[in-house]
Amino acid sequence: MQAVNLDAMLARFAELWSPKRIARVNDYDVRIVKIQGEFTWHRHADTDEFFLVLGGQLTIQMRDRNVVLGPRELFVVPRGVEHCPRADAETSVLLFEPSTVINTGDAGGELTAKVGEIG
Amino acid sequence: MQAVNLDAMLARFAELWSPKRIARVNDYDVRIVKIQGEFTWHRHADTDEFFLVLGGQLTIQMRDRNVVLGPRELFVVPRGVEHCPRADAETSVLLFEPSTVINTGDAGGELTAKVGEIG
Repeated sequence: MQAVNLDAMLARFAELWSPKRIARVNDYDVRIVKIQGEFTWHRHADTDEFFLVLGGQLTIQMRDRNVVLGPRELFVVPRGVEHCPRADAETSVLLFEPSTVINTGDAGGELTAKVGEIG
Repeated sequence: MQAVNLDAMLARFAELWSPKRIARVNDYDVRIVKIQGEFTWHRHADTDEFFLVLGGQLTIQMRDRNVVLGPRELFVVPRGVEHCPRADAETSVLLFEPSTVINTGDAGGELTAKVGEIG
């Protein structure tokens, strides 16, 4: 493996809501994703999901509250908790989650994305 | 869980080589650590280890090469690979690794640190 520069990686794709794997840690992925607008309400029954904002501002909507994250801020959505990410302007996020996790969790639908590689 | 601001967390401790858990993702920890100087050569037989530099510059010495990381750069040391982190000036690092991981791996010794909480 090589060192990974987050900004260089972010410069190499523009697609929204399409997570890219940039590293693996055992059976977990480190993914980056660009988002803008509102995703879909979903939950991951079997796993927590880690969000670290790299640029922009992410709102993680949950049914009982919202969490707003700027750069260098992170949050873990506990397993089973329904959530819907939203970003008014383009926002970049780093995710840690098991390699088996699909982005839309239990919701499925057209936003379901295969995790891509950059390169 | 609350949102976590990395800079606010970093401001709350000064101790070197003493990882602090700031979040959990399933059975993994997200830890931050401040380092300066050279650590000890060690390996983790059973796990990869993720390093993301938050500030400063980290050199991950391995037996066959070094990897130098600045802010927003990351590297995963594969399981079993002997390594020795070094930083000439104070450097802050985010780690992602199984909650069972101890910092000195197979080496033990006086640098072995209990993972702390900030609070």
